[in-house]
Order: sequence, then C-alpha cells, then structure tokens
Amino acid sequence: MTKIKIGLLGLGNVGSGVAQILQENAANIFKRTGKQIELKSVLVRDLNKKRNSNLTNVHTTTDAHSILTDPEIQIIVEVLGGEHPTYEYICQALQNKKFVVTANKEVMAKHHAELTQLAHQNGVDIYYEASVGGGIPIIQTLKVGYAANQLKAIYGILNGTTNYILTKIEEDHLEFNQALQEAQKLGFAEADPTMDISGLDTAYKLTILAGIAFKANLTLADISYEGIQSISLKDILYADEFGYKIKLLAMGQRTKNNEFCLSVQPFMLPKSHPLAAVRNEFNAIYVVGDAIQDAMLYGKGAGSLPTGSAVVSDIMDIAFNYPHNSRRNLETDFPNVKVLPADLQQNKFYLRLLVNDEFGVLEKIAGIFGKNKVSILKVIQKDIIAKQAELVILTHLVQQKDMQQAIIELKKLNCVQEVCAIIKVGLE
Amino acid sequence: MTKIKIGLLGLGNVGSGVAQILQENAANIFKRTGKQIELKSVLVRDLNKKRNSNLTNVHTTTDAHSILTDPEIQIIVEVLGGEHPTYEYICQALQNKKFVVTANKEVMAKHHAELTQLAHQNGVDIYYEASVGGGIPIIQTLKVGYAANQLKAIYGILNGTTNYILTKIEEDHLEFNQALQEAQKLGFAEADPTMDISGLDTAYKLTILAGIAFKANLTLADISYEGIQSISLKDILYADEFGYKIKLLAMGQRTKNNEFCLSVQPFMLPKSHPLAAVRNEFNAIYVVGDAIQDAMLYGKGAGSLPTGSAVVSDIMDIAFNYPHNSRRNLETDFPNVKVLPADLQQNKFYLRLLVNDEFGVLEKIAGIFGKNKVSILKVIQKDIIAKQAELVILTHLVQQKDMQQAIIELKKLNCVQEVCAIIKVGLE
Repeated sequence: MTKIKIGLLGLGNVGSGVAQILQENAANIFKRTGKQIELKSVLVRDLNKKRNSNLTNVHTTTDAHSILTDPEIQIIVEVLGGEHPTYEYICQALQNKKFVVTANKEVMAKHHAELTQLAHQNGVDIYYEASVGGGIPIIQTLKVGYAANQLKAIYGILNGTTNYILTKIEEDHLEFNQALQEAQKLGFAEADPTMDISGLDTAYKLTILAGIAFKANLTLADISYEGIQSISLKDILYADEFGYKIKLLAMGQRTKNNEFCLSVQPFMLPKSHPLAAVRNEFNAIYVVGDAIQDAMLYGKGAGSLPTGSAVVSDIMDIAFNYPHNSRRNLETDFPNVKVLPADLQQNKFYLRLLVNDEFGVLEKIAGIFGKNKVSILKVIQKDIIAKQAELVILTHLVQQKDMQQAIIELKKLNCVQEVCAIIKVGLE
Repeated sequence: MTKIKIGLLGLGNVGSGVAQILQENAANIFKRTGKQIELKSVLVRDLNKKRNSNLTNVHTTTDAHSILTDPEIQIIVEVLGGEHPTYEYICQALQNKKFVVTANKEVMAKHHAELTQLAHQNGVDIYYEASVGGGIPIIQTLKVGYAANQLKAIYGILNGTTNYILTKIEEDHLEFNQALQEAQKLGFAEADPTMDISGLDTAYKLTILAGIAFKANLTLADISYEGIQSISLKDILYADEFGYKIKLLAMGQRTKNNEFCLSVQPFMLPKSHPLAAVRNEFNAIYVVGDAIQDAMLYGKGAGSLPTGSAVVSDIMDIAFNYPHNSRRNLETDFPNVKVLPADLQQNKFYLRLLVNDEFGVLEKIAGIFGKNKVSILKVIQKDIIAKQAELVILTHLVQQKDMQQAIIELKKLNCVQEVCAIIKVGLE
C-alpha cells in the first residue's frame, strides 16, 4: 500500500481545518485515492500553545528546515500566509522535489510563473486551489473542466468580508462603518480590514485567476483596483430602485483585439444576474467561454473547513496518480499580453451629484457631458434639501478617461456642490 | 510526440460540437495536455448526408465495429444517445481496452456500476461528465473538487426545457401549454417533450449524481419523480407573493441515520436561494458538504458546444496523464444504501383548494389536517367567484403519507370542490 506523507507548514485557521479533514475523512480519502495519506510533521510558532485540534502521532516542530528536507515527506502544505519566509520555504520544497500545496494568494499572485517553472525543473508541481475562492474549486475547473474553451471573460466576487458588508448595508439599511463593525464582531472582518476593503485582496486573486483563465503572465500592476470604503447606503438604495445590486467585482475581459481589461471595483449589476444573488460572506466566479458560454461557481470563500477542503482536494489530486507525476500545470510558458490601461476601458456609469436647485443646472451638466462624449441614459432628480437637489445619472458606454475629464469639469461648475458617487454599471 | 486518436460514435448536435471544439481549440488542447488529439473516425447513420461541420481528414463510416476494434484508436466518444445499441458499443470499447467518454444519461443511470467495473477489469476508465448538466463540470467537481467532503445533500435544476418553461410562465404570465409551445418554437423543447416535462430526464440525472455524491448504488427505482404538467400560472404567482419560486428540483438528502431521500418534483424555494436565480434554459447543482458547506455550480445544461465542451474536457483529462492510466473512478464498489420511501419523507407543503364560500369550511379543513398531524403555518383566502373561494395553505413539516391521507379526506368533504395544487416547499 502506497503511503503519502505530508509536512504541514502552519497550524492556524486553515491548517487546523486541513488536519481535521485529513483525520475525519481518512477512510473516504483512502477509498477514493487508493493511497494512505498521513500528516507527519507540522511547523508551529509555539510548541507549548494549547490547541483545539487533536493531533495524534503528529510531530510538531518550530524548525521548517527539518520538514522541508525530510526524505519521507512527499507533499508540503503551506498555510502560513504572507510573502516571506513562505516564498523561500516553497522554493526549497520544490528544489527538494516535493509537491507543494499552498493557500497563499500573495505568493501565487507575485511568483506564479517562476514557481511553476521551478516545479517543472524538479519534476513536481505546485497546487494552489485554496489561494482563491476558499472551497470553490475554480482553479481546477479552469484547468480541466473548462479546458476545452477559450475564455472571453471572468467576473468574481472574491472577498467574503466586503460582500458581507455590502449585503448588510443593503438588507439592514446600515451605513458602511456600522456594517464593518458588525462584520468585525462576527469574525467576517479583521481588526485591520484594509487588505479586504481596499480591494487589494481581490486584486491578488484576480491576478491569479485571470492568469490561468487567459493563459497570460499578469502581475498586480496590471490590475486597477479600488475598494468599497466610499459606498453609501444611499447609493445601494438607488441602485435597488434602478434594478441593480452593488458588488465588489473583479473583472477580466478579453477584447476583440485580444487585449485584456482587468479591474476590481464596486460595480452595479442587474438583480437578475446570477452574481447578484451572491449574499453575505459567499464568493462566486462567473466565466464566459466560447463553448460553455455562461457559467458560475458559488461557495464559501474562506473559513477553516472550506479552505481546508480545497487544500485536501489538491492533496488528493496529487495522490491520485502518485507516484506518476500528475501535473496540473503543464503550461509553464505564460506569454506577456497587452493589458488595456484603465482609462481606456469602457463602461456605463452611475453618478450621484449634489447641485444647487436652480434654473439651468441640468443644461450645464449635459453640456459638459456632451463635450466629453458622455451620453446620458437617464437623469432622476431625488431629494431637495435646503435648496440643494440630488441628481442621479446613468450614462451609456463611455471611455473611463472621458468620464474622468467630465467629472473634473463638473466639479468646477458653481452649481455643482459635490460629486458624491461614481460607480461603474454593466453585465446587462 | 504522443498522439491520441479518437473514434466518435454519432455526429448529431453534440457530436458536431465535439468535432468543432477539437478542431478550433487544437492548439490550446495540445499546449494544455502535451498530446496531439486527433479525430480519426466517425460513426454516422448516412454517409451521404450534407453536414455543416467541416471534417477534414476524418474517416466517416456506418460500421461501428470498424471503429470499436481499430487498434490505433485509444478513446471512444459516444454521443449517439439511447440505451441500445449504445450500451453494447460501450461494453465492446471497454473490452477492447479503450477509454470511453459518453454523454449518455440513460446508459449511465442504468449501468453505472457495471460499466465502471468493466472498465477497471480492462485497465481503462469511463468518463461521463456530459451526461449531466451539459457544460457544468459537476461530476469532476464531485470526484475531485469536493472529494475531501462527506456530502449531506445535493439539489439540482437539471433540465433546461422545464426550467425554461417555468421561467416563461412566471415572467411572461403564460399558462403551461403556451410556454411549452414557445419553448418548442425556440428549440428548447422537443416535439414530444414527455421525457423532459415528466421529470424522467431529471430522475436519470439524479440517479447518476446522487450515486457519485453519496457513493451509493442507486437505480431509477430509488427516485420518486413527478413533472411540471400540472403547474399553473396561478400557483407561480401565489408563490411569488409568498416569496418563493417554483423549480423542477432534483433532491438527494442524507438523513441523520445515513438513509437517503431521493426525489424529483416541482418545488417552492425562497427567492433569496441561489437556485431561485437560475432562469431560462440554465441548469445548476447545489451541494452541501461537511467541509465546503454550501456550494453551487451553474451553467448551460445542454446544447452542442456546452455539452461538447464537457466531452472534450473528459478527453483532455484522459490525455493529461496518458499513457499512464489516469482513472477518475477508483471506487468501483458501490454499496447498496437504504433509501427512504417517498411517503416517509418529510416536507412542508403549499396547497391550493377551491371550496364553497360558506360558514365553517375552514374549521372542517383544519379538523382533517389536525387529525392527520398536518400543522398549518398560513391560510390565505384568495378570489371569491360564484360562491366559491380559493384557499391557499402553507403547512409546517409533515410526512408525505400524512399529507396524502389528509388530501384523500379533504376530497370527500362536500364543501371542498377541488384540490387544485399540492407543491412541496423548503430550502429555507
């Protein structure tokens, strides 16, 4: 009977989930793969820390080197997070001809091409299903399930914290800060939530997914991203009125000229779109391919067991054909592609303005729009308070740079008090 | 360079899609798998038939035997449909040590265990992603992506025709027959739609999916199924009023005692449920696992290219590790499990009754319900026409046999003119 031994780097939230699943589902895993998978050693920070997980017959150590060089270990599972020294550990593991399974979005977003090549030079492979979308098997689906397609677009709700916050604002009529506090209380947002709410977490994940989907060498610098800090209850309610929901959306699109648009931002999409039904801390990835047409995967984007499930699924995928090298990453040569700068990308826009309630305001605004090739689809005058009127405008498709120029000019008008919100609209 | 040659049985809708994808995406497929995949021979009914597909260098024949015994062919792709002679062709292919890729739900629902074992005896395997959910890679996801889980439940919208009809009834306020005619006009329903609207198509697919999800030996006889013929616009509008949508839902659930409930029927689920957002001809499969928790896959359930994509994905999955045997079906021993008879399954129910508009009717109905352990959650009196009142009733959880007994007794009441609709409610 073939035994496969695992070295686990990290025993935090995800590490404990991995250990728990390997233990509780051992019989099923053996039946499924025909291999006995054994957790041999675990790298921890503090040997004396009390732990909930019941690790029997598992060696715990603070010495990474002893695990990375252990000749009995065939798979290194990295769930430490952060770029360093994790990146160095992964390199050492691959150089020592061990398969690597990682949940690390930052390392994969920054070093994908290099690590894939290093794996191949050493006759092994690196698996990273857990780095994006927690329990959603999107990477495997892109690499196998949709492999027969040329993908045209990928859209994702990839961050549970921000989706939870947006859902709470909408459903409980909270303002952003209240919703954030509630998310923190329930453990859906960290004490310092910057990484999530700024859109950076989502941008890392889009770098990984779009790289696989479009078979391209992409970096974080290719993605223009913004967060949800400035989203207010008012805009979510107006969106609802127009038949839209606001989501923090990762977008990767292939243009007709085989160029790519990549961005992360709050986005208004129609309520009838399947992504609009993704509530609370759930994630989803929507894909458009030449053969499958429209498709979506939905599930928990984080958490000990969902992410642990993705890690163990990767371990099983390796175990499946072991000792034959079952390599998922046969393509190691990712070409550079042309990424369209954000200001050349086209979108529809939603705007909310505070203007003086006086004669001729709309004409002045329309004049600036017309001059900048911004075509108006709809204007609605909302509340009038203390001689100020709130205008909500929906535009037709417009280049981002034209919209930006129009905004600059709007702000110079005496009758415009404030440009309160600018949100992209689409997927209709 | 390794070449893999394909014998294709059938050049209808799906067969043409397979041929088209293999041709158009040949470069990507080669890059991804490292193997050159070549369509060598195609079994057709009529050699002289004019075809749209541009098959260059492909041998067409009416002689299945010549393909099934061709020593140059490593993979047989079966897209003929029907049980015979397809089943026999598949057996011969496996006996001749060829991998088989099939889109055949009927053959797989009826012969799954036997064909899997036959494949293993011959050192090959049978892949059938395209047999359920068209372009949705649900089988691969159950076998690999969710492999680390024990699955508790699987819910599916598995038939595009019926989902299209239900969507049209709801959104365009049509009656069933009008919606069916429109579906037929657009090619979403066949001239004889019985297989789809009776629920049989969905029941075949549930047999396959639940068998994989629960690792159990299931047959069509384990599934109680009913179709959507009796769904009326009125019930869909009332459902909407109560916050529900009606879908033809395949359901497989594991009870606390490790027994299984399996059924296909029109079902009311809350509008906020992700399955409620699955419109038109789309399919989706919702899964609950011990580690991933809630997850869903969504996409086109039929069509030349989506189903062709699933077939080619299976071919690539075989090609990936070829000539090593990359077998997805390592478990060939599926135990018999205890399936709970339909009348012992529990559900909430929606009922619509036509009663005499007279004193004491509600008391009589409530009396019969109470006697049969049916607890009422809500009663609403709708239209009164010609001294008849329409009553809509929602119940709490009740065993199906108790509900059936209550209905029998209701029908005997003089004041009850008609029991117009009985629909299960749940997933709240």
